[in-house]
Amino acid sequence: MDIGGTKTEAVALDAEGRIESSVTVPTVRGADAVVATSETVVAALAERTGRRIGEFVSVGVGIPGQVDREGGLVSHAVNLGVTSLALGPALAERTGLPVSIDNDVTAAALGAAHLMGLTGTMAYLNLGTGLAAGIVVDGRPWRGARGVAGEIGHLPVDPLGRPCPCGQRGCLETVASGSALRSSWPAGGDHPGRRILAAIAEGDDEARAAFEHLVAGAAACVRLLALSVDPETVVVGGGLRLLGAPLEDGLRSKLDGWAAGSPFLAALGLSERVRMLAADSPAAAVGAAFAGER
Amino acid sequence: MDIGGTKTEAVALDAEGRIESSVTVPTVRGADAVVATSETVVAALAERTGRRIGEFVSVGVGIPGQVDREGGLVSHAVNLGVTSLALGPALAERTGLPVSIDNDVTAAALGAAHLMGLTGTMAYLNLGTGLAAGIVVDGRPWRGARGVAGEIGHLPVDPLGRPCPCGQRGCLETVASGSALRSSWPAGGDHPGRRILAAIAEGDDEARAAFEHLVAGAAACVRLLALSVDPETVVVGGGLRLLGAPLEDGLRSKLDGWAAGSPFLAALGLSERVRMLAADSPAAAVGAAFAGER
Repeated sequence: MDIGGTKTEAVALDAEGRIESSVTVPTVRGADAVVATSETVVAALAERTGRRIGEFVSVGVGIPGQVDREGGLVSHAVNLGVTSLALGPALAERTGLPVSIDNDVTAAALGAAHLMGLTGTMAYLNLGTGLAAGIVVDGRPWRGARGVAGEIGHLPVDPLGRPCPCGQRGCLETVASGSALRSSWPAGGDHPGRRILAAIAEGDDEARAAFEHLVAGAAACVRLLALSVDPETVVVGGGLRLLGAPLEDGLRSKLDGWAAGSPFLAALGLSERVRMLAADSPAAAVGAAFAGER
Repeated sequence: MDIGGTKTEAVALDAEGRIESSVTVPTVRGADAVVATSETVVAALAERTGRRIGEFVSVGVGIPGQVDREGGLVSHAVNLGVTSLALGPALAERTGLPVSIDNDVTAAALGAAHLMGLTGTMAYLNLGTGLAAGIVVDGRPWRGARGVAGEIGHLPVDPLGRPCPCGQRGCLETVASGSALRSSWPAGGDHPGRRILAAIAEGDDEARAAFEHLVAGAAACVRLLALSVDPETVVVGGGLRLLGAPLEDGLRSKLDGWAAGSPFLAALGLSERVRMLAADSPAAAVGAAFAGER
Protein backbone atom coordinates (compact mmCIF):
# COMPACT_ATOMS: atom_id res chain seq x y z
CA MET A 1 0.00 0.00 0.00
CA ASP A 2 0.95 3.61 -0.57
CA ILE A 3 -0.11 5.93 2.24
CA GLY A 4 -0.23 9.41 0.74
CA GLY A 5 -1.29 12.78 2.09
CA THR A 6 -4.77 12.55 0.57
CA LYS A 7 -5.40 8.88 -0.20
CA THR A 8 -4.22 5.40 0.69
CA GLU A 9 -3.98 3.03 -2.26
CA ALA A 10 -3.41 -0.70 -1.92
CA VAL A 11 -3.03 -3.56 -4.38
CA ALA A 12 -2.99 -7.33 -4.02
CA LEU A 13 -0.28 -8.91 -6.17
CA ASP A 14 -0.17 -12.52 -7.28
CA ALA A 15 3.00 -14.64 -7.27
CA GLU A 16 4.02 -13.24 -10.66
CA GLY A 17 3.67 -9.64 -9.50
CA ARG A 18 0.41 -9.00 -11.39
CA ILE A 19 -2.27 -6.83 -9.80
CA GLU A 20 -5.19 -9.01 -8.66
CA SER A 21 -7.21 -6.34 -6.96
CA SER A 22 -6.91 -2.80 -5.67
CA VAL A 23 -8.59 -0.45 -3.25
CA THR A 24 -8.28 3.27 -2.55
CA VAL A 25 -9.56 5.06 0.55
CA PRO A 26 -9.08 8.58 1.90
CA THR A 27 -6.16 9.01 4.29
CA VAL A 28 -7.10 10.29 7.74
CA ARG A 29 -4.44 12.24 9.61
CA GLY A 30 -2.85 11.06 12.81
CA ALA A 31 -0.95 7.96 13.97
CA ASP A 32 -3.97 5.94 15.14
CA ALA A 33 -5.93 6.72 11.98
CA VAL A 34 -3.00 5.68 9.77
CA VAL A 35 -2.76 2.31 11.51
CA ALA A 36 -6.54 1.80 11.32
CA THR A 37 -6.66 2.71 7.63
CA SER A 38 -3.81 0.40 6.74
CA GLU A 39 -5.54 -2.47 8.53
CA THR A 40 -8.76 -1.61 6.72
CA VAL A 41 -7.24 -1.79 3.23
CA VAL A 42 -5.63 -5.17 3.96
CA ALA A 43 -9.02 -6.51 5.05
CA ALA A 44 -10.68 -4.97 1.98
CA LEU A 45 -8.17 -6.64 -0.36
CA ALA A 46 -8.73 -9.98 1.36
CA GLU A 47 -12.46 -9.65 0.85
CA ARG A 48 -12.15 -8.58 -2.77
CA THR A 49 -9.82 -11.45 -3.63
CA GLY A 50 -11.92 -13.97 -1.69
CA ARG A 51 -9.11 -14.86 0.71
CA ARG A 52 -8.46 -14.81 4.40
CA ILE A 53 -5.91 -12.17 5.47
CA GLY A 54 -3.64 -14.99 6.59
CA GLU A 55 -3.35 -16.18 2.99
CA PHE A 56 -1.36 -13.08 2.04
CA VAL A 57 2.41 -13.66 2.17
CA SER A 58 3.35 -10.20 3.40
CA VAL A 59 2.34 -6.56 3.53
CA GLY A 60 4.52 -3.75 2.18
CA VAL A 61 3.91 -0.11 3.00
CA GLY A 62 5.26 2.97 1.22
CA ILE A 63 4.98 6.11 3.31
CA PRO A 64 6.45 9.63 3.27
CA GLY A 65 8.72 10.84 6.04
CA GLN A 66 11.76 9.24 7.60
CA VAL A 67 11.61 5.47 7.69
CA ASP A 68 13.56 3.07 9.86
CA ARG A 69 13.04 -0.11 7.85
CA GLU A 70 14.59 -2.39 10.44
CA GLY A 71 12.17 -1.32 13.17
CA GLY A 72 9.23 -0.48 10.88
CA LEU A 73 9.22 3.05 12.33
CA VAL A 74 7.97 6.18 10.61
CA SER A 75 8.81 9.69 11.82
CA HIS A 76 8.27 13.25 10.64
CA ALA A 77 5.55 12.28 8.14
CA VAL A 78 4.26 15.86 8.28
CA ASN A 79 1.56 15.45 5.61
CA LEU A 80 0.05 12.54 7.56
CA GLY A 81 0.14 14.30 10.92
CA VAL A 82 2.51 11.61 12.19
CA THR A 83 5.46 12.57 14.40
CA SER A 84 6.53 9.05 15.27
CA LEU A 85 4.80 5.74 14.70
CA ALA A 86 5.84 2.08 14.95
CA LEU A 87 3.62 1.24 11.97
CA GLY A 88 5.36 -2.02 11.10
CA PRO A 89 4.89 -3.70 14.50
CA ALA A 90 1.35 -2.29 14.88
CA LEU A 91 0.19 -3.56 11.49
CA ALA A 92 1.96 -6.90 11.95
CA GLU A 93 0.12 -7.42 15.22
CA ARG A 94 -3.25 -6.59 13.70
CA THR A 95 -2.86 -8.69 10.55
CA GLY A 96 -0.59 -11.49 11.73
CA LEU A 97 1.52 -10.90 8.59
CA PRO A 98 5.14 -9.86 8.11
CA VAL A 99 5.13 -6.11 7.38
CA SER A 100 7.83 -4.04 5.71
CA ILE A 101 7.85 -0.25 5.64
CA ASP A 102 9.73 1.79 3.09
CA ASN A 103 10.04 5.32 1.84
CA ASP A 104 7.27 6.18 -0.63
CA VAL A 105 9.69 7.43 -3.29
CA THR A 106 11.72 4.22 -3.14
CA ALA A 107 8.50 2.22 -3.37
CA ALA A 108 7.30 4.24 -6.37
CA ALA A 109 10.66 3.79 -8.09
CA LEU A 110 10.49 0.00 -7.63
CA GLY A 111 6.88 -0.11 -8.78
CA ALA A 112 7.52 2.06 -11.83
CA ALA A 113 10.45 -0.12 -12.88
CA HIS A 114 8.27 -3.24 -12.52
CA LEU A 115 5.14 -1.87 -14.22
CA MET A 116 7.07 -0.24 -17.07
CA GLY A 117 9.33 -3.27 -17.57
CA LEU A 118 12.55 -1.28 -17.09
CA THR A 119 15.70 -3.34 -16.61
CA GLY A 120 19.22 -2.15 -15.79
CA THR A 121 19.42 1.20 -14.02
CA MET A 122 16.48 3.59 -13.79
CA ALA A 123 15.76 6.70 -11.76
CA TYR A 124 12.34 7.80 -10.60
CA LEU A 125 12.12 11.58 -10.30
CA ASN A 126 9.43 12.42 -7.76
CA LEU A 127 8.06 15.91 -8.35
CA GLY A 128 5.84 16.16 -5.29
CA THR A 129 5.53 18.77 -2.56
CA GLY A 130 9.27 18.15 -2.22
CA LEU A 131 11.78 16.73 -4.67
CA ALA A 132 13.72 13.47 -4.55
CA ALA A 133 14.72 10.62 -6.84
CA GLY A 134 14.57 6.90 -6.25
CA ILE A 135 17.08 4.69 -8.02
CA VAL A 136 16.56 1.07 -9.04
CA VAL A 137 19.33 -1.19 -10.31
CA ASP A 138 18.37 -4.57 -11.76
CA GLY A 139 15.06 -4.52 -9.93
CA ARG A 140 16.50 -3.60 -6.55
CA PRO A 141 16.50 -0.24 -4.77
CA TRP A 142 19.88 1.51 -4.78
CA ARG A 143 19.87 3.13 -1.35
CA GLY A 144 23.46 4.29 -1.10
CA ALA A 145 25.92 3.95 1.75
CA ARG A 146 23.87 6.09 4.11
CA GLY A 147 20.40 5.85 2.61
CA VAL A 148 20.43 9.21 0.81
CA ALA A 149 21.16 8.12 -2.75
CA GLY A 150 18.91 10.13 -5.07
CA GLU A 151 18.21 12.92 -2.54
CA ILE A 152 18.99 15.46 -5.23
CA GLY A 153 16.37 17.94 -4.00
CA HIS A 154 18.90 19.50 -1.66
CA LEU A 155 21.65 20.17 -4.16
CA PRO A 156 22.11 23.91 -4.70
CA VAL A 157 22.16 24.99 -8.35
CA ASP A 158 21.90 28.77 -7.93
CA PRO A 159 23.85 30.80 -5.35
CA LEU A 160 21.25 33.57 -5.75
CA GLY A 161 18.25 31.24 -5.54
CA ARG A 162 15.56 30.99 -2.86
CA PRO A 163 16.35 29.90 0.69
CA CYS A 164 15.48 26.22 1.14
CA PRO A 165 13.94 24.79 4.33
CA CYS A 166 17.04 22.54 4.52
CA GLY A 167 19.17 25.57 5.44
CA GLN A 168 20.85 26.00 2.06
CA ARG A 169 19.99 28.32 -0.82
CA GLY A 170 18.91 27.70 -4.40
CA CYS A 171 18.43 23.93 -3.98
CA LEU A 172 16.77 22.01 -6.82
CA GLU A 173 13.72 21.60 -4.58
CA THR A 174 13.27 25.41 -4.59
CA VAL A 175 12.87 25.23 -8.38
CA ALA A 176 11.34 21.85 -9.26
CA SER A 177 8.59 20.87 -6.82
CA GLY A 178 5.05 21.67 -5.78
CA SER A 179 6.32 23.94 -3.02
CA ALA A 180 8.54 25.76 -5.54
CA LEU A 181 5.52 26.29 -7.77
CA ARG A 182 3.55 27.75 -4.85
CA SER A 183 6.37 30.27 -4.28
CA SER A 184 6.81 31.25 -7.91
CA TRP A 185 3.07 31.47 -8.65
CA PRO A 186 1.34 32.53 -5.43
CA ALA A 187 -1.90 33.19 -7.34
CA GLY A 188 -2.16 29.43 -7.81
CA GLY A 189 -3.11 28.78 -4.20
CA ASP A 190 -2.29 25.59 -2.29
CA HIS A 191 -2.43 23.23 -5.30
CA PRO A 192 -1.05 25.32 -8.15
CA GLY A 193 -0.40 22.19 -10.25
CA ARG A 194 -4.14 21.66 -10.64
CA ARG A 195 -4.75 25.15 -12.01
CA ILE A 196 -1.62 26.29 -13.81
CA LEU A 197 -2.30 24.76 -17.24
CA ALA A 198 -5.73 26.40 -17.39
CA ALA A 199 -4.22 29.73 -16.31
CA ILE A 200 -1.57 29.49 -19.04
CA ALA A 201 -4.27 28.69 -21.59
CA GLU A 202 -6.06 31.86 -20.48
CA GLY A 203 -2.93 33.91 -21.16
CA ASP A 204 -1.61 34.30 -17.59
CA ASP A 205 2.04 35.32 -18.11
CA GLU A 206 3.02 34.79 -14.48
CA ALA A 207 1.69 31.26 -14.61
CA ARG A 208 3.62 30.64 -17.82
CA ALA A 209 6.86 31.98 -16.32
CA ALA A 210 6.40 29.82 -13.20
CA PHE A 211 5.72 26.74 -15.34
CA GLU A 212 8.83 27.36 -17.45
CA HIS A 213 10.93 27.79 -14.31
CA LEU A 214 9.59 24.48 -13.02
CA VAL A 215 10.33 22.73 -16.31
CA ALA A 216 13.90 24.08 -16.38
CA GLY A 217 14.43 22.82 -12.84
CA ALA A 218 13.07 19.36 -13.65
CA ALA A 219 15.29 19.24 -16.75
CA ALA A 220 18.27 20.09 -14.53
CA CYS A 221 17.32 17.09 -12.39
CA VAL A 222 17.41 14.80 -15.43
CA ARG A 223 20.83 16.15 -16.45
CA LEU A 224 22.11 15.76 -12.89
CA LEU A 225 20.93 12.16 -12.64
CA ALA A 226 22.51 11.36 -16.02
CA LEU A 227 25.91 12.81 -15.06
CA SER A 228 26.06 11.14 -11.65
CA VAL A 229 24.15 7.84 -11.58
CA ASP A 230 23.67 7.62 -15.38
CA PRO A 231 20.36 5.73 -15.50
CA GLU A 232 19.06 4.47 -18.84
CA THR A 233 15.62 5.92 -18.08
CA VAL A 234 14.32 8.73 -15.90
CA VAL A 235 10.66 8.25 -15.03
CA VAL A 236 8.91 11.45 -13.96
CA GLY A 237 6.32 10.92 -11.25
CA GLY A 238 4.94 12.53 -8.11
CA GLY A 239 1.91 14.79 -7.74
CA LEU A 240 3.09 17.13 -10.52
CA ARG A 241 2.83 14.33 -13.07
CA LEU A 242 -0.75 15.59 -13.43
CA LEU A 243 0.88 18.27 -15.65
CA GLY A 244 1.14 15.42 -18.16
CA ALA A 245 2.02 16.08 -21.78
CA PRO A 246 2.84 19.80 -21.34
CA LEU A 247 5.41 18.86 -18.68
CA GLU A 248 6.81 16.02 -20.77
CA ASP A 249 7.01 18.15 -23.93
CA GLY A 250 8.52 21.05 -21.97
CA LEU A 251 11.15 18.77 -20.46
CA ARG A 252 12.19 17.29 -23.80
CA SER A 253 12.26 20.69 -25.43
CA LYS A 254 14.44 22.15 -22.64
CA LEU A 255 16.85 19.19 -22.76
CA ASP A 256 17.03 19.36 -26.56
CA GLY A 257 17.74 23.10 -26.33
CA TRP A 258 20.66 22.45 -23.99
CA ALA A 259 21.94 19.71 -26.28
CA ALA A 260 21.84 22.11 -29.23
CA GLY A 261 24.31 24.35 -27.36
CA SER A 262 26.58 21.57 -26.10
CA PRO A 263 27.97 18.66 -28.14
CA PHE A 264 28.85 17.06 -24.81
CA LEU A 265 25.22 17.03 -23.68
CA ALA A 266 23.99 16.11 -27.16
CA ALA A 267 25.94 12.83 -26.94
CA LEU A 268 24.11 11.87 -23.74
CA GLY A 269 20.65 11.47 -25.31
CA LEU A 270 18.98 13.13 -22.33
CA SER A 271 15.56 13.85 -23.78
CA GLU A 272 15.10 10.30 -25.05
CA ARG A 273 15.68 8.97 -21.53
CA VAL A 274 12.63 10.76 -20.11
CA ARG A 275 9.37 8.90 -19.57
CA MET A 276 6.29 9.96 -17.64
CA LEU A 277 4.60 7.77 -15.07
CA ALA A 278 0.97 7.29 -16.11
CA ALA A 279 -1.38 9.57 -14.15
CA ASP A 280 -3.29 6.63 -12.65
CA SER A 281 -0.32 4.31 -12.08
CA PRO A 282 -0.35 2.53 -8.71
CA ALA A 283 3.47 2.44 -8.81
CA ALA A 284 4.10 3.18 -5.15
CA ALA A 285 1.56 0.60 -3.92
CA VAL A 286 3.01 -2.06 -6.24
CA GLY A 287 6.61 -1.19 -5.35
CA ALA A 288 5.86 -1.28 -1.62
CA ALA A 289 4.92 -4.95 -2.02
CA PHE A 290 8.40 -5.66 -3.41
CA ALA A 291 10.37 -3.37 -1.13
CA GLY A 292 10.48 -5.80 1.77
CA GLU A 293 12.03 -8.63 -0.21
CA ARG A 294 14.45 -6.38 -2.09
CA MET B 1 50.11 1.31 -16.56
CA ASP B 2 48.90 4.88 -16.27
CA ILE B 3 49.81 7.05 -19.25
CA GLY B 4 49.64 10.64 -18.02
CA GLY B 5 50.45 13.96 -19.61
CA THR B 6 53.93 14.13 -18.07
CA LYS B 7 54.82 10.58 -17.01
CA THR B 8 53.93 6.96 -17.65
CA GLU B 9 53.84 4.82 -14.52
CA ALA B 10 53.59 1.04 -14.57
CA VAL B 11 53.40 -1.64 -11.90
CA ALA B 12 53.66 -5.42 -11.97
CA LEU B 13 51.07 -7.05 -9.70
CA ASP B 14 51.22 -10.55 -8.32
CA ALA B 15 48.22 -12.90 -8.20
CA GLU B 16 47.09 -11.34 -4.92
CA GLY B 17 47.16 -7.82 -6.35
CA ARG B 18 50.33 -6.78 -4.49
CA ILE B 19 52.85 -4.54 -6.23
CA GLU B 20 55.94 -6.57 -7.18
CA SER B 21 57.78 -3.90 -9.09
CA SER B 22 57.21 -0.49 -10.65
CA VAL B 23 58.72 1.80 -13.24
CA THR B 24 58.15 5.41 -14.23
CA VAL B 25 59.30 7.06 -17.45
CA PRO B 26 58.56 10.43 -19.06
CA THR B 27 55.64 10.45 -21.50
CA VAL B 28 56.52 11.51 -25.03
CA ARG B 29 53.74 13.11 -27.06
CA GLY B 30 52.24 11.54 -30.17
CA ALA B 31 50.63 8.24 -31.10
CA ASP B 32 53.80 6.37 -32.09
CA ALA B 33 55.65 7.54 -28.99
CA VAL B 34 52.82 6.47 -26.72
CA VAL B 35 52.86 2.94 -28.22
CA ALA B 36 56.65 2.75 -27.96
CA THR B 37 56.66 3.96 -24.35
CA SER B 38 53.99 1.51 -23.30
CA GLU B 39 55.96 -1.36 -24.86
CA THR B 40 59.09 -0.10 -23.09
CA VAL B 41 57.55 -0.15 -19.63
CA VAL B 42 56.21 -3.68 -20.09
CA ALA B 43 59.71 -4.83 -21.07
CA ALA B 44 61.20 -2.93 -18.13
CA LEU B 45 58.83 -4.61 -15.68
CA ALA B 46 59.66 -8.02 -17.13
CA GLU B 47 63.35 -7.36 -16.61
CA ARG B 48 62.90 -6.03 -13.07
CA THR B 49 60.81 -9.02 -12.03
CA GLY B 50 63.14 -11.49 -13.76
CA ARG B 51 60.44 -12.78 -16.11
CA ARG B 52 59.80 -13.07 -19.79
CA ILE B 53 57.07 -10.74 -21.06
CA GLY B 54 55.03 -13.80 -21.97
CA GLU B 55 54.78 -14.74 -18.29
CA PHE B 56 52.55 -11.74 -17.58
CA VAL B 57 48.85 -12.62 -17.68
CA SER B 58 47.65 -9.36 -19.16
CA VAL B 59 48.37 -5.66 -19.58
CA GLY B 60 45.96 -2.94 -18.45
CA VAL B 61 46.28 0.67 -19.54
CA GLY B 62 44.69 3.75 -18.02
CA ILE B 63 44.73 6.73 -20.35
CA PRO B 64 43.00 10.12 -20.58
CA GLY B 65 40.66 10.96 -23.45
CA GLN B 66 37.78 9.00 -24.88
CA VAL B 67 38.21 5.25 -24.68
CA ASP B 68 36.45 2.55 -26.67
CA ARG B 69 37.20 -0.40 -24.41
CA GLU B 70 35.87 -3.00 -26.82
CA GLY B 71 38.24 -1.99 -29.61
CA GLY B 72 41.09 -0.72 -27.40
CA LEU B 73 40.82 2.67 -29.11
CA VAL B 74 41.82 6.02 -27.63
CA SER B 75 40.72 9.34 -29.11
CA HIS B 76 40.98 13.03 -28.20
CA ALA B 77 43.74 12.48 -25.63
CA VAL B 78 44.76 16.11 -26.04
CA ASN B 79 47.46 16.12 -23.35
CA LEU B 80 49.20 13.20 -25.04
CA GLY B 81 49.01 14.67 -28.54
CA VAL B 82 46.87 11.73 -29.60
CA THR B 83 43.88 12.27 -31.89
CA SER B 84 43.10 8.64 -32.50
CA LEU B 85 45.06 5.51 -31.65
CA ALA B 86 44.31 1.78 -31.64
CA LEU B 87 46.55 1.36 -28.61
CA GLY B 88 45.08 -1.98 -27.50
CA PRO B 89 45.71 -3.85 -30.76
CA ALA B 90 49.13 -2.21 -31.23
CA LEU B 91 50.37 -3.11 -27.76
CA ALA B 92 48.87 -6.61 -27.97
CA GLU B 93 50.79 -7.24 -31.19
CA ARG B 94 54.06 -6.01 -29.71
CA THR B 95 53.80 -7.89 -26.41
CA GLY B 96 51.76 -10.95 -27.38
CA LEU B 97 49.59 -10.28 -24.30
CA PRO B 98 45.89 -9.51 -23.90
CA VAL B 99 45.61 -5.74 -23.46
CA SER B 100 42.73 -3.77 -21.96
CA ILE B 101 42.40 0.00 -22.19
CA ASP B 102 40.32 2.08 -19.81
CA ASN B 103 39.73 5.65 -18.84
CA ASP B 104 42.39 6.92 -16.42
CA VAL B 105 39.85 8.17 -13.88
CA THR B 106 38.09 4.81 -13.78
CA ALA B 107 41.46 3.11 -13.38
CA ALA B 108 42.48 5.44 -10.55
CA ALA B 109 39.16 4.86 -8.80
CA LEU B 110 39.62 1.08 -8.96
CA GLY B 111 43.22 1.35 -7.81
CA ALA B 112 42.39 3.70 -4.94
CA ALA B 113 39.62 1.39 -3.72
CA HIS B 114 42.06 -1.56 -3.83
CA LEU B 115 45.06 0.17 -2.25
CA MET B 116 42.98 1.87 0.47
CA GLY B 117 40.97 -1.28 1.23
CA LEU B 118 37.61 0.40 0.57
CA THR B 119 34.62 -1.92 0.26
CA GLY B 120 31.03 -1.08 -0.66
CA THR B 121 30.57 2.09 -2.69
CA MET B 122 33.33 4.68 -3.10
CA ALA B 123 33.81 7.66 -5.38
CA TYR B 124 37.15 8.93 -6.63
CA LEU B 125 37.07 12.67 -7.23
CA ASN B 126 39.69 13.51 -9.84
CA LEU B 127 40.79 17.14 -9.54
CA GLY B 128 42.99 17.31 -12.63
CA THR B 129 43.10 19.70 -15.56
CA GLY B 130 39.44 18.74 -15.84
CA LEU B 131 37.03 17.34 -13.28
CA ALA B 132 35.35 13.94 -13.13
CA ALA B 133 34.56 11.24 -10.61
CA GLY B 134 35.03 7.49 -10.88
CA ILE B 135 32.66 5.26 -8.94
CA VAL B 136 33.47 1.78 -7.64
CA VAL B 137 30.86 -0.58 -6.20
CA ASP B 138 32.10 -3.75 -4.47
CA GLY B 139 35.42 -3.58 -6.31
CA ARG B 140 33.92 -3.05 -9.76
CA PRO B 141 33.64 0.15 -11.79
CA TRP B 142 30.16 1.61 -11.92
CA ARG B 143 30.04 2.95 -15.47
CA GLY B 144 26.36 3.79 -15.80
CA ALA B 145 23.94 3.03 -18.60
CA ARG B 146 25.84 5.12 -21.15
CA GLY B 147 29.31 5.28 -19.65
CA VAL B 148 29.01 8.75 -18.12
CA ALA B 149 28.36 7.91 -14.46
CA GLY B 150 30.43 10.27 -12.33
CA GLU B 151 30.93 12.89 -15.09
CA ILE B 152 29.93 15.57 -12.62
CA GLY B 153 32.35 18.15 -14.04
CA HIS B 154 29.73 19.32 -16.51
CA LEU B 155 26.93 19.96 -14.06
CA PRO B 156 26.16 23.68 -13.83
CA VAL B 157 26.01 25.05 -10.29
CA ASP B 158 25.99 28.79 -11.00
CA PRO B 159 23.90 30.46 -13.74
CA LEU B 160 26.29 33.44 -13.56
CA GLY B 161 29.45 31.33 -13.59
CA ARG B 162 32.16 31.08 -16.24
CA PRO B 163 31.47 29.64 -19.69
CA CYS B 164 32.62 26.01 -19.84
CA PRO B 165 34.27 24.44 -22.91
CA CYS B 166 31.36 21.95 -22.90
CA GLY B 167 29.01 24.72 -24.06
CA GLN B 168 27.28 25.31 -20.73
CA ARG B 169 27.95 27.92 -18.04
CA GLY B 170 29.06 27.67 -14.43
CA CYS B 171 29.85 23.93 -14.55
CA LEU B 172 31.62 22.39 -11.56
CA GLU B 173 34.71 22.04 -13.76
CA THR B 174 34.87 25.84 -14.07
CA VAL B 175 35.27 26.01 -10.28
CA ALA B 176 37.04 22.85 -9.13
CA SER B 177 39.88 21.90 -11.49
CA GLY B 178 43.35 22.88 -12.59
CA SER B 179 41.94 24.81 -15.53
CA ALA B 180 39.57 26.66 -13.18
CA LEU B 181 42.52 27.60 -10.99
CA ARG B 182 44.39 28.97 -14.02
CA SER B 183 41.39 31.20 -14.80
CA SER B 184 40.84 32.44 -11.27
CA TRP B 185 44.56 33.01 -10.54
CA PRO B 186 46.23 33.92 -13.84
CA ALA B 187 49.40 34.99 -11.99
CA GLY B 188 49.95 31.31 -11.21
CA GLY B 189 50.95 30.44 -14.77
CA ASP B 190 50.39 27.06 -16.39
CA HIS B 191 50.71 24.98 -13.23
CA PRO B 192 49.15 27.16 -10.54
CA GLY B 193 48.71 24.18 -8.19
CA ARG B 194 52.50 23.99 -7.75
CA ARG B 195 52.81 27.61 -6.66
CA ILE B 196 49.60 28.64 -4.97
CA LEU B 197 50.37 27.47 -1.42
CA ALA B 198 53.66 29.38 -1.41
CA ALA B 199 51.91 32.47 -2.76
CA ILE B 200 49.27 32.26 -0.03
CA ALA B 201 52.03 31.88 2.59
CA GLU B 202 53.56 35.09 1.21
CA GLY B 203 50.26 36.92 1.73
CA ASP B 204 48.94 36.90 -1.86
CA ASP B 205 45.23 37.69 -1.41
CA GLU B 206 44.30 36.79 -4.98
CA ALA B 207 45.91 33.40 -4.57
CA ARG B 208 44.01 32.90 -1.32
CA ALA B 209 40.68 33.84 -2.92
CA ALA B 210 41.33 31.49 -5.85
CA PHE B 211 42.23 28.66 -3.47
CA GLU B 212 39.08 29.20 -1.42
CA HIS B 213 36.96 29.20 -4.57
CA LEU B 214 38.56 25.92 -5.59
CA VAL B 215 37.95 24.38 -2.17
CA ALA B 216 34.28 25.46 -2.20
CA GLY B 217 33.88 23.87 -5.63
CA ALA B 218 35.50 20.62 -4.53
CA ALA B 219 33.29 20.56 -1.43
CA ALA B 220 30.26 21.00 -3.71
CA CYS B 221 31.44 17.91 -5.59
CA VAL B 222 31.52 15.87 -2.38
CA ARG B 223 28.00 17.04 -1.49
CA LEU B 224 26.77 16.26 -4.98
CA LEU B 225 28.23 12.76 -4.95
CA ALA B 226 26.71 12.12 -1.51
CA LEU B 227 23.21 13.21 -2.57
CA SER B 228 23.20 11.27 -5.83
CA VAL B 229 25.36 8.13 -5.64
CA ASP B 230 25.84 8.26 -1.85
CA PRO B 231 29.29 6.64 -1.58
CA GLU B 232 30.65 5.76 1.84
CA THR B 233 33.98 7.40 0.98
CA VAL B 234 35.06 10.13 -1.42
CA VAL B 235 38.76 9.86 -2.25
CA VAL B 236 40.26 13.09 -3.59
CA GLY B 237 42.91 12.55 -6.24
CA GLY B 238 44.17 13.99 -9.50
CA GLY B 239 46.99 16.46 -10.05
CA LEU B 240 45.65 18.92 -7.49
CA ARG B 241 46.09 16.37 -4.71
CA LEU B 242 49.56 17.93 -4.46
CA LEU B 243 47.73 20.64 -2.48
CA GLY B 244 47.68 18.00 0.27
CA ALA B 245 46.71 18.89 3.82
CA PRO B 246 45.62 22.48 3.08
CA LEU B 247 43.15 21.13 0.49
CA GLU B 248 41.95 18.36 2.82
CA ASP B 249 41.57 20.73 5.80
CA GLY B 250 39.87 23.33 3.62
CA LEU B 251 37.42 20.73 2.29
CA ARG B 252 36.48 19.44 5.74
CA SER B 253 36.13 22.94 7.09
CA LYS B 254 33.87 24.01 4.21
CA LEU B 255 31.70 20.89 4.57
CA ASP B 256 31.48 21.36 8.34
CA GLY B 257 30.49 24.99 7.81
CA TRP B 258 27.64 23.93 5.52
CA ALA B 259 26.57 21.28 8.04
CA ALA B 260 26.47 23.92 10.79
CA GLY B 261 23.85 25.81 8.74
CA SER B 262 21.81 22.77 7.72
CA PRO B 263 20.64 19.95 10.01
CA PHE B 264 19.90 18.00 6.82
CA LEU B 265 23.53 18.17 5.67
CA ALA B 266 24.80 17.62 9.21
CA ALA B 267 23.11 14.21 9.28
CA LEU B 268 25.03 13.12 6.17
CA GLY B 269 28.49 13.14 7.75
CA LEU B 270 30.04 14.67 4.64
CA SER B 271 33.39 15.77 6.03
CA GLU B 272 34.12 12.38 7.57
CA ARG B 273 33.67 10.72 4.18
CA VAL B 274 36.58 12.62 2.61
CA ARG B 275 39.96 10.98 2.22
CA MET B 276 42.97 12.12 0.22
CA LEU B 277 44.84 9.87 -2.18
CA ALA B 278 48.50 9.76 -1.10
CA ALA B 279 50.68 12.05 -3.25
CA ASP B 280 52.82 9.14 -4.49
CA SER B 281 50.04 6.56 -4.86
CA PRO B 282 50.24 4.52 -8.09
CA ALA B 283 46.43 4.15 -7.96
CA ALA B 284 45.77 4.54 -11.69
CA ALA B 285 48.51 2.09 -12.71
CA VAL B 286 47.26 -0.48 -10.19
CA GLY B 287 43.62 0.02 -11.14
CA ALA B 288 44.41 -0.29 -14.85
CA ALA B 289 45.64 -3.83 -14.19
CA PHE B 290 42.20 -4.70 -12.76
CA ALA B 291 40.08 -2.76 -15.19
CA GLY B 292 40.20 -5.39 -17.91
CA GLU B 293 38.85 -8.16 -15.73
CA ARG B 294 36.23 -5.97 -14.07
